[in-house]
Amino acid sequence: MENYKQFLCLFICAVSVGVVSIVFVLSWVLYFKEGLEWDGGLAEFNWHPLLIVIGFIFLQGIAIVVYRLPWTWRCSKLMMKFIHAGLNLLAFLLAVISLVAVFDFHNAKKIPNMYSLHSWVGLAAVILYSLQLVLGLLVYLVPITPVYVRAALMPLHVYSGLVIFVSVIAAALMGITEKLIFGLSDPKYKDSPPEAVFVNVLGMLITVFGGLILWIATRPSWKRPNEQLIRPLVRDTSESAPTSMETVKTDCAEADINGDTRRRSGKVNEAGPKASV
Amino acid sequence: MENYKQFLCLFICAVSVGVVSIVFVLSWVLYFKEGLEWDGGLAEFNWHPLLIVIGFIFLQGIAIVVYRLPWTWRCSKLMMKFIHAGLNLLAFLLAVISLVAVFDFHNAKKIPNMYSLHSWVGLAAVILYSLQLVLGLLVYLVPITPVYVRAALMPLHVYSGLVIFVSVIAAALMGITEKLIFGLSDPKYKDSPPEAVFVNVLGMLITVFGGLILWIATRPSWKRPNEQLIRPLVRDTSESAPTSMETVKTDCAEADINGDTRRRSGKVNEAGPKASV
Repeated sequence: MENYKQFLCLFICAVSVGVVSIVFVLSWVLYFKEGLEWDGGLAEFNWHPLLIVIGFIFLQGIAIVVYRLPWTWRCSKLMMKFIHAGLNLLAFLLAVISLVAVFDFHNAKKIPNMYSLHSWVGLAAVILYSLQLVLGLLVYLVPITPVYVRAALMPLHVYSGLVIFVSVIAAALMGITEKLIFGLSDPKYKDSPPEAVFVNVLGMLITVFGGLILWIATRPSWKRPNEQLIRPLVRDTSESAPTSMETVKTDCAEADINGDTRRRSGKVNEAGPKASV
Repeated sequence: MENYKQFLCLFICAVSVGVVSIVFVLSWVLYFKEGLEWDGGLAEFNWHPLLIVIGFIFLQGIAIVVYRLPWTWRCSKLMMKFIHAGLNLLAFLLAVISLVAVFDFHNAKKIPNMYSLHSWVGLAAVILYSLQLVLGLLVYLVPITPVYVRAALMPLHVYSGLVIFVSVIAAALMGITEKLIFGLSDPKYKDSPPEAVFVNVLGMLITVFGGLILWIATRPSWKRPNEQLIRPLVRDTSESAPTSMETVKTDCAEADINGDTRRRSGKVNEAGPKASV
Protein backbone atom coordinates (compact mmCIF):
# COMPACT_ATOMS: atom_id res chain seq x y z
CA MET A 1 0.00 0.00 0.00
CA GLU A 2 1.22 3.47 -0.93
CA ASN A 3 1.73 5.71 2.12
CA TYR A 4 0.92 2.84 4.49
CA LYS A 5 2.11 4.75 7.55
CA GLN A 6 -0.03 7.77 6.66
CA PHE A 7 -3.03 5.48 6.22
CA LEU A 8 -2.39 3.74 9.54
CA CYS A 9 -1.93 7.05 11.33
CA LEU A 10 -5.16 8.50 9.92
CA PHE A 11 -7.13 5.32 10.54
CA ILE A 12 -5.94 5.18 14.16
CA CYS A 13 -6.86 8.89 14.50
CA ALA A 14 -10.33 8.23 13.05
CA VAL A 15 -10.98 5.25 15.34
CA SER A 16 -9.65 7.19 18.35
CA VAL A 17 -11.83 10.23 17.62
CA GLY A 18 -14.81 7.92 17.06
CA VAL A 19 -14.22 6.08 20.36
CA VAL A 20 -13.74 9.36 22.23
CA SER A 21 -17.04 10.58 20.71
CA ILE A 22 -18.77 7.49 22.10
CA VAL A 23 -17.18 8.10 25.53
CA PHE A 24 -18.35 11.74 25.33
CA VAL A 25 -21.96 10.90 24.43
CA LEU A 26 -22.02 8.20 27.13
CA SER A 27 -20.66 10.67 29.70
CA TRP A 28 -23.23 13.22 28.55
CA VAL A 29 -26.24 10.98 29.13
CA LEU A 30 -24.89 9.33 32.30
CA TYR A 31 -23.18 12.26 34.03
CA PHE A 32 -24.95 15.40 32.79
CA LYS A 33 -28.38 13.94 31.92
CA GLU A 34 -30.80 11.37 33.35
CA GLY A 35 -28.97 8.14 32.51
CA LEU A 36 -30.41 5.28 30.46
CA GLU A 37 -33.80 3.65 31.04
CA TRP A 38 -36.73 2.47 28.93
CA ASP A 39 -39.52 4.25 30.80
CA GLY A 40 -40.94 6.80 28.34
CA GLY A 41 -39.03 9.57 30.11
CA LEU A 42 -35.89 11.56 29.41
CA ALA A 43 -33.74 8.54 30.29
CA GLU A 44 -35.38 6.69 27.39
CA PHE A 45 -34.74 9.62 25.05
CA ASN A 46 -31.05 9.38 25.95
CA TRP A 47 -30.76 6.11 24.01
CA HIS A 48 -31.30 8.24 20.89
CA PRO A 49 -28.01 10.21 20.87
CA LEU A 50 -26.05 7.27 22.28
CA LEU A 51 -27.15 4.72 19.67
CA ILE A 52 -26.88 7.23 16.82
CA VAL A 53 -23.25 8.01 17.69
CA ILE A 54 -22.33 4.32 18.22
CA GLY A 55 -24.21 2.92 15.24
CA PHE A 56 -25.16 5.49 12.66
CA ILE A 57 -21.91 7.45 12.94
CA PHE A 58 -19.08 5.24 14.26
CA LEU A 59 -20.08 1.85 12.83
CA GLN A 60 -21.21 3.38 9.52
CA GLY A 61 -17.89 5.23 9.27
CA ILE A 62 -15.90 2.02 9.88
CA ALA A 63 -18.12 0.14 7.40
CA ILE A 64 -17.30 2.77 4.75
CA VAL A 65 -13.53 2.27 5.01
CA VAL A 66 -13.42 -1.43 5.91
CA TYR A 67 -12.42 -2.51 2.37
CA ARG A 68 -9.39 -0.23 2.62
CA LEU A 69 -7.80 -1.82 5.68
CA PRO A 70 -4.73 -3.52 4.16
CA TRP A 71 -4.78 -6.34 6.70
CA THR A 72 -8.17 -7.40 5.24
CA TRP A 73 -6.86 -7.68 1.67
CA ARG A 74 -6.10 -11.36 2.20
CA CYS A 75 -9.76 -11.93 3.10
CA SER A 76 -12.02 -13.05 0.29
CA LYS A 77 -14.07 -10.33 -1.37
CA LEU A 78 -17.24 -12.16 -0.31
CA MET A 79 -16.19 -12.16 3.33
CA MET A 80 -15.44 -8.42 3.14
CA LYS A 81 -18.84 -7.80 1.57
CA PHE A 82 -20.47 -9.66 4.48
CA ILE A 83 -18.47 -7.60 6.99
CA HIS A 84 -19.37 -4.34 5.16
CA ALA A 85 -23.06 -5.31 4.97
CA GLY A 86 -23.06 -6.65 8.53
CA LEU A 87 -21.64 -3.44 10.01
CA ASN A 88 -24.16 -1.39 8.04
CA LEU A 89 -27.02 -3.66 9.10
CA LEU A 90 -25.97 -3.35 12.75
CA ALA A 91 -25.77 0.45 12.35
CA PHE A 92 -29.24 0.45 10.81
CA LEU A 93 -30.72 -1.65 13.64
CA LEU A 94 -29.21 0.66 16.27
CA ALA A 95 -30.61 3.67 14.37
CA VAL A 96 -34.09 2.09 14.31
CA ILE A 97 -33.95 1.37 18.07
CA SER A 98 -32.82 4.96 18.67
CA LEU A 99 -35.80 6.20 16.62
CA VAL A 100 -38.20 4.00 18.62
CA ALA A 101 -36.78 5.53 21.81
CA VAL A 102 -37.36 9.10 20.67
CA PHE A 103 -40.86 8.44 19.24
CA ASP A 104 -41.78 6.61 22.45
CA PHE A 105 -40.53 9.53 24.54
CA HIS A 106 -42.37 12.10 22.37
CA ASN A 107 -45.62 10.13 22.52
CA ALA A 108 -45.38 9.71 26.30
CA LYS A 109 -44.76 13.44 26.77
CA LYS A 110 -47.28 14.55 24.10
CA ILE A 111 -44.53 16.21 22.08
CA PRO A 112 -45.25 16.23 18.31
CA ASN A 113 -43.08 14.01 16.14
CA MET A 114 -41.33 15.01 12.93
CA TYR A 115 -41.75 18.79 13.19
CA SER A 116 -38.08 19.80 13.13
CA LEU A 117 -35.53 20.05 10.34
CA HIS A 118 -33.39 17.64 12.40
CA SER A 119 -36.14 15.02 12.17
CA TRP A 120 -36.71 15.65 8.44
CA VAL A 121 -33.03 15.26 7.52
CA GLY A 122 -32.58 12.40 9.98
CA LEU A 123 -35.59 10.40 8.76
CA ALA A 124 -34.63 11.03 5.12
CA ALA A 125 -31.16 9.63 5.96
CA VAL A 126 -32.67 6.54 7.63
CA ILE A 127 -34.98 5.88 4.65
CA LEU A 128 -32.15 6.36 2.13
CA TYR A 129 -29.90 4.14 4.27
CA SER A 130 -32.47 1.34 4.27
CA LEU A 131 -32.82 1.66 0.47
CA GLN A 132 -29.02 1.62 0.16
CA LEU A 133 -28.88 -1.54 2.30
CA VAL A 134 -31.57 -3.39 0.31
CA LEU A 135 -30.16 -2.31 -3.07
CA GLY A 136 -26.62 -3.10 -1.93
CA LEU A 137 -27.64 -6.62 -0.84
CA LEU A 138 -29.56 -7.26 -4.08
CA VAL A 139 -26.85 -5.93 -6.36
CA TYR A 140 -23.62 -7.01 -4.64
CA LEU A 141 -24.54 -10.11 -2.62
CA VAL A 142 -27.09 -11.88 -4.82
CA PRO A 143 -24.86 -14.02 -7.07
CA ILE A 144 -27.05 -13.78 -10.19
CA THR A 145 -26.76 -9.99 -10.53
CA PRO A 146 -24.80 -9.37 -13.75
CA VAL A 147 -21.34 -7.87 -13.37
CA TYR A 148 -22.19 -4.95 -15.67
CA VAL A 149 -25.10 -3.98 -13.38
CA ARG A 150 -22.75 -4.05 -10.37
CA ALA A 151 -20.22 -1.93 -12.21
CA ALA A 152 -22.82 0.55 -13.45
CA LEU A 153 -24.33 1.06 -9.99
CA MET A 154 -21.06 1.22 -8.02
CA PRO A 155 -20.47 4.99 -8.45
CA LEU A 156 -24.01 5.66 -7.21
CA HIS A 157 -23.54 3.17 -4.32
CA VAL A 158 -20.31 4.87 -3.23
CA TYR A 159 -21.69 8.41 -3.66
CA SER A 160 -24.95 7.73 -1.82
CA GLY A 161 -23.09 5.96 0.97
CA LEU A 162 -20.90 8.99 1.57
CA VAL A 163 -23.77 11.50 1.22
CA ILE A 164 -25.93 9.54 3.67
CA PHE A 165 -23.01 9.42 6.12
CA VAL A 166 -22.53 13.20 5.86
CA SER A 167 -26.30 13.78 6.20
CA VAL A 168 -26.37 11.67 9.36
CA ILE A 169 -23.59 13.80 10.86
CA ALA A 170 -25.44 17.00 9.87
CA ALA A 171 -28.62 15.62 11.48
CA ALA A 172 -26.65 14.71 14.62
CA LEU A 173 -25.26 18.24 14.88
CA MET A 174 -28.79 19.65 14.57
CA GLY A 175 -29.98 17.17 17.20
CA ILE A 176 -27.23 18.26 19.59
CA THR A 177 -28.21 21.90 19.00
CA GLU A 178 -31.88 21.15 19.74
CA LYS A 179 -31.11 19.13 22.86
CA LEU A 180 -28.79 21.78 24.31
CA ILE A 181 -31.38 24.54 23.73
CA PHE A 182 -34.31 22.53 25.15
CA GLY A 183 -32.34 20.70 27.85
CA LEU A 184 -30.55 23.64 29.46
CA SER A 185 -32.65 26.17 31.36
CA ASP A 186 -30.70 27.55 34.33
CA PRO A 187 -28.02 28.28 33.20
CA LYS A 188 -29.11 28.40 29.57
CA TYR A 189 -27.16 27.26 26.51
CA LYS A 190 -26.10 30.85 25.80
CA ASP A 191 -24.47 31.04 29.24
CA SER A 192 -22.06 28.25 28.23
CA PRO A 193 -22.37 25.95 31.28
CA PRO A 194 -19.92 23.00 31.38
CA GLU A 195 -22.49 20.68 29.75
CA ALA A 196 -22.86 23.06 26.77
CA VAL A 197 -19.10 23.26 26.20
CA PHE A 198 -18.70 19.50 26.70
CA VAL A 199 -21.40 18.66 24.14
CA ASN A 200 -20.16 21.30 21.67
CA VAL A 201 -16.81 19.46 21.83
CA LEU A 202 -18.70 16.22 21.12
CA GLY A 203 -20.17 17.90 18.02
CA MET A 204 -16.71 18.95 16.85
CA LEU A 205 -15.35 15.44 17.47
CA ILE A 206 -18.13 13.96 15.33
CA THR A 207 -17.33 16.48 12.58
CA VAL A 208 -13.61 15.62 12.70
CA PHE A 209 -14.45 11.89 12.62
CA GLY A 210 -16.54 12.50 9.48
CA GLY A 211 -13.72 14.48 7.87
CA LEU A 212 -11.16 11.71 8.57
CA ILE A 213 -13.44 8.97 7.20
CA LEU A 214 -14.10 11.03 4.04
CA TRP A 215 -10.35 11.50 3.47
CA ILE A 216 -9.59 7.79 3.96
CA ALA A 217 -12.54 6.74 1.78
CA THR A 218 -11.64 8.98 -1.16
CA ARG A 219 -7.88 8.39 -1.65
CA PRO A 220 -7.53 6.40 -4.89
CA SER A 221 -4.22 4.85 -3.82
CA TRP A 222 -5.82 3.28 -0.73
CA LYS A 223 -8.40 1.27 -2.63
CA ARG A 224 -8.45 -2.48 -2.09
CA PRO A 225 -6.33 -3.81 -4.98
CA ASN A 226 -7.75 -5.92 -7.77
CA GLU A 227 -8.05 -9.59 -6.93
CA GLN A 228 -5.30 -10.45 -9.45
CA LEU A 229 -2.83 -8.49 -7.34
CA ILE A 230 -3.92 -10.10 -4.09
CA ARG A 231 -4.02 -13.76 -5.15
CA PRO A 232 -0.38 -14.11 -6.23
CA LEU A 233 0.64 -12.53 -2.92
CA VAL A 234 -1.31 -15.18 -1.03
CA ARG A 235 0.18 -18.00 -3.11
CA ASP A 236 3.74 -16.70 -2.87
CA THR A 237 4.01 -16.00 0.85
CA SER A 238 5.74 -19.33 1.53
CA GLU A 239 8.18 -18.82 -1.31
CA SER A 240 9.60 -15.38 -0.59
CA ALA A 241 10.72 -13.29 2.34
CA PRO A 242 7.71 -11.71 4.04
CA THR A 243 7.06 -7.97 3.63
CA SER A 244 5.49 -5.86 6.35
CA MET A 245 2.06 -6.59 4.89
CA GLU A 246 2.72 -10.29 4.40
CA THR A 247 3.51 -10.74 8.07
CA VAL A 248 -0.08 -9.93 8.95
CA LYS A 249 -1.41 -13.33 9.95
CA THR A 250 -5.15 -13.88 9.86
CA ASP A 251 -7.52 -16.58 8.79
CA CYS A 252 -8.27 -14.38 5.82
CA ALA A 253 -5.49 -15.79 3.64
CA GLU A 254 -7.10 -19.17 3.99
CA ALA A 255 -10.46 -17.63 3.26
CA ASP A 256 -9.03 -15.93 0.19
CA ILE A 257 -8.02 -19.29 -1.21
CA ASN A 258 -11.07 -21.26 -0.16
CA GLY A 259 -13.77 -18.60 0.03
CA ASP A 260 -15.51 -16.60 -2.64
CA THR A 261 -15.96 -18.98 -5.54
CA ARG A 262 -17.20 -16.23 -7.83
CA ARG A 263 -13.74 -14.72 -7.94
CA ARG A 264 -12.38 -17.98 -9.30
CA SER A 265 -14.53 -17.71 -12.41
CA GLY A 266 -12.17 -15.09 -13.76
CA LYS A 267 -14.67 -12.27 -13.37
CA VAL A 268 -12.27 -10.35 -11.22
CA ASN A 269 -12.97 -7.03 -12.81
CA GLU A 270 -16.34 -6.52 -11.22
CA ALA A 271 -16.81 -3.05 -9.83
CA GLY A 272 -16.44 -4.01 -6.18
CA PRO A 273 -12.71 -3.99 -5.59
CA LYS A 274 -12.14 -1.01 -7.85
CA ALA A 275 -14.67 1.22 -6.19
CA SER A 276 -13.81 3.84 -3.68
CA VAL A 277 -15.10 2.05 -0.63
CA MET B 1 -18.12 15.32 -22.74
CA GLU B 2 -19.44 11.94 -21.69
CA ASN B 3 -23.13 12.03 -20.65
CA TYR B 4 -23.40 15.70 -21.59
CA LYS B 5 -27.20 15.71 -21.30
CA GLN B 6 -27.04 14.16 -17.83
CA PHE B 7 -24.50 16.78 -16.78
CA LEU B 8 -26.61 19.60 -18.19
CA CYS B 9 -29.76 18.27 -16.52
CA LEU B 10 -28.06 17.95 -13.13
CA PHE B 11 -26.35 21.33 -13.41
CA ILE B 12 -29.66 23.02 -14.28
CA CYS B 13 -31.26 21.18 -11.34
CA ALA B 14 -28.48 22.36 -8.99
CA VAL B 15 -28.73 25.99 -10.15
CA SER B 16 -32.54 25.87 -9.93
CA VAL B 17 -32.50 24.41 -6.42
CA GLY B 18 -29.87 27.00 -5.43
CA VAL B 19 -31.91 29.90 -6.84
CA VAL B 20 -35.10 28.60 -5.20
CA SER B 21 -33.17 28.39 -1.89
CA ILE B 22 -32.22 32.06 -2.27
CA VAL B 23 -35.86 32.96 -3.03
CA PHE B 24 -36.92 30.98 0.04
CA VAL B 25 -34.44 32.67 2.41
CA LEU B 26 -35.36 36.08 0.96
CA SER B 27 -39.07 35.34 1.45
CA TRP B 28 -38.34 34.13 4.99
CA VAL B 29 -36.62 37.35 6.09
CA LEU B 30 -38.92 39.69 4.16
CA TYR B 31 -42.31 38.01 4.61
CA PHE B 32 -42.07 36.01 7.84
CA LYS B 33 -39.40 38.04 9.67
CA GLU B 34 -38.46 41.69 10.15
CA GLY B 35 -37.00 42.49 6.73
CA LEU B 36 -33.49 43.83 6.12
CA GLU B 37 -31.93 46.81 7.90
CA TRP B 38 -28.57 47.68 9.46
CA ASP B 39 -29.82 48.89 12.84
CA GLY B 40 -28.49 46.39 15.39
CA GLY B 41 -31.91 44.72 15.57
CA LEU B 42 -33.44 41.55 14.21
CA ALA B 43 -33.59 43.09 10.72
CA GLU B 44 -29.79 43.33 10.81
CA PHE B 45 -29.49 39.73 11.95
CA ASN B 46 -31.51 38.73 8.88
CA TRP B 47 -28.57 39.59 6.61
CA HIS B 48 -26.83 36.59 8.19
CA PRO B 49 -28.96 33.76 6.71
CA LEU B 50 -29.50 35.67 3.45
CA LEU B 51 -25.81 36.30 2.72
CA ILE B 52 -24.76 32.82 3.87
CA VAL B 53 -27.21 31.17 1.45
CA ILE B 54 -26.30 33.49 -1.45
CA GLY B 55 -22.55 33.51 -0.90
CA PHE B 56 -21.30 30.72 1.27
CA ILE B 57 -23.64 28.09 -0.15
CA PHE B 58 -24.78 29.06 -3.68
CA LEU B 59 -21.69 30.90 -4.94
CA GLN B 60 -19.30 28.45 -3.29
CA GLY B 61 -21.21 25.56 -4.87
CA ILE B 62 -20.97 27.12 -8.33
CA ALA B 63 -17.28 27.92 -7.78
CA ILE B 64 -16.66 24.24 -6.98
CA VAL B 65 -18.07 23.00 -10.29
CA VAL B 66 -17.14 25.93 -12.54
CA TYR B 67 -14.18 24.08 -14.13
CA ARG B 68 -16.57 21.33 -15.20
CA LEU B 69 -18.91 23.47 -17.30
CA PRO B 70 -18.08 22.30 -20.83
CA TRP B 71 -18.81 25.71 -22.35
CA THR B 72 -15.85 27.07 -20.32
CA TRP B 73 -13.37 24.53 -21.69
CA ARG B 74 -12.41 26.96 -24.46
CA CYS B 75 -11.47 29.52 -21.81
CA SER B 76 -7.84 29.62 -20.76
CA LYS B 77 -6.97 27.77 -17.59
CA LEU B 78 -5.79 31.05 -16.09
CA MET B 79 -9.11 32.74 -16.79
CA MET B 80 -10.95 29.82 -15.18
CA LYS B 81 -8.68 30.05 -12.15
CA PHE B 82 -9.56 33.74 -11.82
CA ILE B 83 -13.28 32.95 -12.10
CA HIS B 84 -12.95 30.12 -9.52
CA ALA B 85 -10.96 32.33 -7.14
CA GLY B 86 -13.21 35.34 -7.79
CA LEU B 87 -16.40 33.44 -6.96
CA ASN B 88 -14.80 32.08 -3.80
CA LEU B 89 -13.53 35.51 -2.80
CA LEU B 90 -17.00 36.99 -3.30
CA ALA B 91 -18.50 34.15 -1.24
CA PHE B 92 -15.94 34.82 1.49
CA LEU B 93 -16.71 38.57 1.54
CA LEU B 94 -20.44 37.91 1.82
CA ALA B 95 -19.76 35.43 4.63
CA VAL B 96 -17.68 38.03 6.50
CA ILE B 97 -20.43 40.68 6.13
CA SER B 98 -22.95 38.14 7.38
CA LEU B 99 -20.75 37.47 10.41
CA VAL B 100 -20.44 41.21 11.12
CA ALA B 101 -24.25 41.44 11.01
CA VAL B 102 -24.73 38.67 13.56
CA PHE B 103 -21.95 39.86 15.91
CA ASP B 104 -23.36 43.40 15.70
CA PHE B 105 -26.84 42.13 16.54
CA HIS B 106 -25.58 39.98 19.43
CA ASN B 107 -23.56 42.86 20.89
CA ALA B 108 -26.49 45.29 20.60
CA LYS B 109 -28.82 42.82 22.35
CA LYS B 110 -26.21 41.65 24.91
CA ILE B 111 -26.39 38.09 23.59
CA PRO B 112 -23.10 36.16 24.03
CA ASN B 113 -21.16 35.34 20.88
CA MET B 114 -19.71 31.96 19.94
CA TYR B 115 -21.50 29.83 22.53
CA SER B 116 -23.30 27.45 20.18
CA LEU B 117 -22.13 24.44 18.15
CA HIS B 118 -23.51 26.29 15.11
CA SER B 119 -21.09 29.14 15.74
CA TRP B 120 -18.15 26.78 16.40
CA VAL B 121 -18.64 24.80 13.20
CA GLY B 122 -19.47 27.97 11.22
CA LEU B 123 -16.43 29.93 12.40
CA ALA B 124 -14.17 26.90 11.85
CA ALA B 125 -15.52 26.75 8.28
CA VAL B 126 -14.86 30.48 7.72
CA ILE B 127 -11.29 30.20 9.07
CA LEU B 128 -10.55 27.10 6.97
CA TYR B 129 -12.14 28.80 3.94
CA SER B 130 -9.87 31.83 4.33
CA LEU B 131 -6.82 29.52 4.64
CA GLN B 132 -7.99 27.63 1.56
CA LEU B 133 -8.31 30.92 -0.33
CA VAL B 134 -4.86 32.19 0.64
CA LEU B 135 -3.16 28.84 0.01
CA GLY B 136 -5.08 28.44 -3.26
CA LEU B 137 -3.95 31.85 -4.47
CA LEU B 138 -0.31 31.23 -3.46
CA VAL B 139 -0.12 27.76 -4.94
CA TYR B 140 -2.25 28.02 -8.10
CA LEU B 141 -2.09 31.69 -9.11
CA VAL B 142 1.46 32.72 -8.21
CA PRO B 143 3.39 31.80 -11.37
CA ILE B 144 6.61 30.79 -9.61
CA THR B 145 5.05 27.95 -7.60
CA PRO B 146 6.61 24.73 -8.94
CA VAL B 147 4.28 22.38 -10.81
CA TYR B 148 5.13 19.46 -8.49
CA VAL B 149 3.95 21.51 -5.49
CA ARG B 150 0.68 22.28 -7.29
CA ALA B 151 0.21 18.63 -8.14
CA ALA B 152 1.08 17.44 -4.64
CA LEU B 153 -1.36 19.83 -2.97
CA MET B 154 -4.26 19.41 -5.41
CA PRO B 155 -5.87 16.37 -3.68
CA LEU B 156 -5.82 18.30 -0.39
CA HIS B 157 -7.19 21.44 -2.11
CA VAL B 158 -10.09 19.48 -3.64
CA TYR B 159 -10.83 17.52 -0.47
CA SER B 160 -10.75 20.54 1.84
CA GLY B 161 -12.90 22.53 -0.59
CA LEU B 162 -15.60 19.87 -0.53
CA VAL B 163 -15.37 19.31 3.25
CA ILE B 164 -15.63 23.05 3.93
CA PHE B 165 -18.65 23.25 1.59
CA VAL B 166 -20.34 20.37 3.45
CA SER B 167 -19.45 21.91 6.84
CA VAL B 168 -21.00 25.23 5.78
CA ILE B 169 -24.23 23.43 4.87
CA ALA B 170 -24.20 21.57 8.21
CA ALA B 171 -23.66 24.89 10.02
CA ALA B 172 -26.51 26.47 8.02
CA LEU B 173 -28.88 23.63 9.00
CA MET B 174 -27.92 24.14 12.67
CA GLY B 175 -28.45 27.89 12.27
CA ILE B 176 -31.92 27.31 10.82
CA THR B 177 -32.72 25.00 13.75
CA GLU B 178 -31.58 27.63 16.27
CA LYS B 179 -33.46 30.47 14.58
CA LEU B 180 -36.72 28.51 14.36
CA ILE B 181 -36.53 27.53 18.04
CA PHE B 182 -35.64 31.03 19.25
CA GLY B 183 -37.73 32.96 16.71
CA LEU B 184 -41.06 31.16 17.08
CA SER B 185 -42.92 31.58 20.36
CA ASP B 186 -46.69 31.53 19.74
CA PRO B 187 -47.13 29.15 17.95
CA LYS B 188 -43.87 27.42 18.75
CA TYR B 189 -41.62 25.44 16.38
CA LYS B 190 -43.11 22.16 17.64
CA ASP B 191 -46.58 23.35 16.58
CA SER B 192 -45.38 23.49 12.96
CA PRO B 193 -46.68 26.95 11.97
CA PRO B 194 -46.33 27.86 8.24
CA GLU B 195 -42.98 29.59 8.85
CA ALA B 196 -41.53 26.43 10.44
CA VAL B 197 -42.60 24.22 7.53
CA PHE B 198 -41.42 26.83 5.00
CA VAL B 199 -37.97 27.11 6.56
CA ASN B 200 -37.66 23.32 7.02
CA VAL B 201 -38.23 23.10 3.25
CA LEU B 202 -35.46 25.69 2.82
CA GLY B 203 -33.17 23.41 4.84
CA MET B 204 -34.05 20.44 2.66
CA LEU B 205 -33.43 22.51 -0.49
CA ILE B 206 -29.97 23.49 0.76
CA THR B 207 -29.23 19.82 1.50
CA VAL B 208 -30.34 18.76 -1.99
CA PHE B 209 -28.25 21.57 -3.54
CA GLY B 210 -25.22 20.26 -1.64
CA GLY B 211 -25.91 16.70 -2.79
CA LEU B 212 -26.16 17.77 -6.45
CA ILE B 213 -22.94 19.81 -6.30
CA LEU B 214 -21.09 16.89 -4.69
CA TRP B 215 -22.29 14.51 -7.44
CA ILE B 216 -21.26 16.91 -10.23
CA ALA B 217 -17.90 17.66 -8.58
CA THR B 218 -16.90 14.01 -8.10
CA ARG B 219 -17.68 12.42 -11.50
CA PRO B 220 -14.28 11.63 -13.07
CA SER B 221 -15.71 11.79 -16.62
CA TRP B 222 -16.86 15.39 -16.13
CA LYS B 223 -13.41 16.76 -15.34
CA ARG B 224 -12.11 19.59 -17.50
CA PRO B 225 -9.99 17.79 -20.13
CA ASN B 226 -6.24 18.19 -20.37
CA GLU B 227 -5.16 21.29 -22.25
CA GLN B 228 -3.78 19.13 -25.13
CA LEU B 229 -7.30 17.95 -25.85
CA ILE B 230 -8.78 21.44 -25.77
CA ARG B 231 -6.27 23.30 -27.93
CA PRO B 232 -6.66 21.24 -31.13
CA LEU B 233 -10.43 21.71 -30.86
CA VAL B 234 -9.97 25.47 -30.78
CA ARG B 235 -7.61 25.44 -33.74
CA ASP B 236 -9.79 23.14 -35.80
CA THR B 237 -13.17 24.77 -35.40
CA SER B 238 -12.86 26.67 -38.69
CA GLU B 239 -11.80 23.54 -40.55
CA SER B 240 -14.52 21.08 -39.62
CA ALA B 241 -18.28 20.96 -39.15
CA PRO B 242 -19.14 22.28 -35.69
CA THR B 243 -20.31 19.83 -33.03
CA SER B 244 -22.84 20.78 -30.40
CA MET B 245 -20.02 21.90 -28.10
CA GLU B 246 -18.17 23.78 -30.82
CA THR B 247 -21.20 25.94 -31.54
CA VAL B 248 -20.85 27.53 -28.12
CA LYS B 249 -19.54 30.97 -29.00
CA THR B 250 -17.73 32.94 -26.34
CA ASP B 251 -14.68 35.09 -26.06
CA CYS B 252 -13.07 32.15 -24.34
CA ALA B 253 -11.77 30.54 -27.53
CA GLU B 254 -9.85 33.73 -28.22
CA ALA B 255 -8.67 33.77 -24.63
CA ASP B 256 -7.60 30.17 -24.92
CA ILE B 257 -5.29 31.05 -27.79
CA ASN B 258 -4.02 34.35 -26.47
CA GLY B 259 -4.37 34.00 -22.75
CA ASP B 260 -2.53 31.85 -20.25
CA THR B 261 1.09 31.87 -21.41
CA ARG B 262 2.12 29.31 -18.84
CA ARG B 263 0.23 26.63 -20.71
CA ARG B 264 2.31 27.34 -23.80
CA SER B 265 5.46 26.24 -22.03
CA GLY B 266 4.43 22.62 -22.45
CA LYS B 267 3.75 22.18 -18.74
CA VAL B 268 0.22 21.11 -19.46
CA ASN B 269 0.25 18.29 -16.99
CA GLU B 270 0.02 20.47 -13.95
CA ALA B 271 -2.50 19.20 -11.46
CA GLY B 272 -5.15 21.83 -12.13
CA PRO B 273 -7.05 20.43 -15.10
CA LYS B 274 -6.80 16.88 -13.90
CA ALA B 275 -8.19 17.56 -10.48
CA SER B 276 -11.74 16.88 -9.50
CA VAL B 277 -12.91 20.45 -9.41
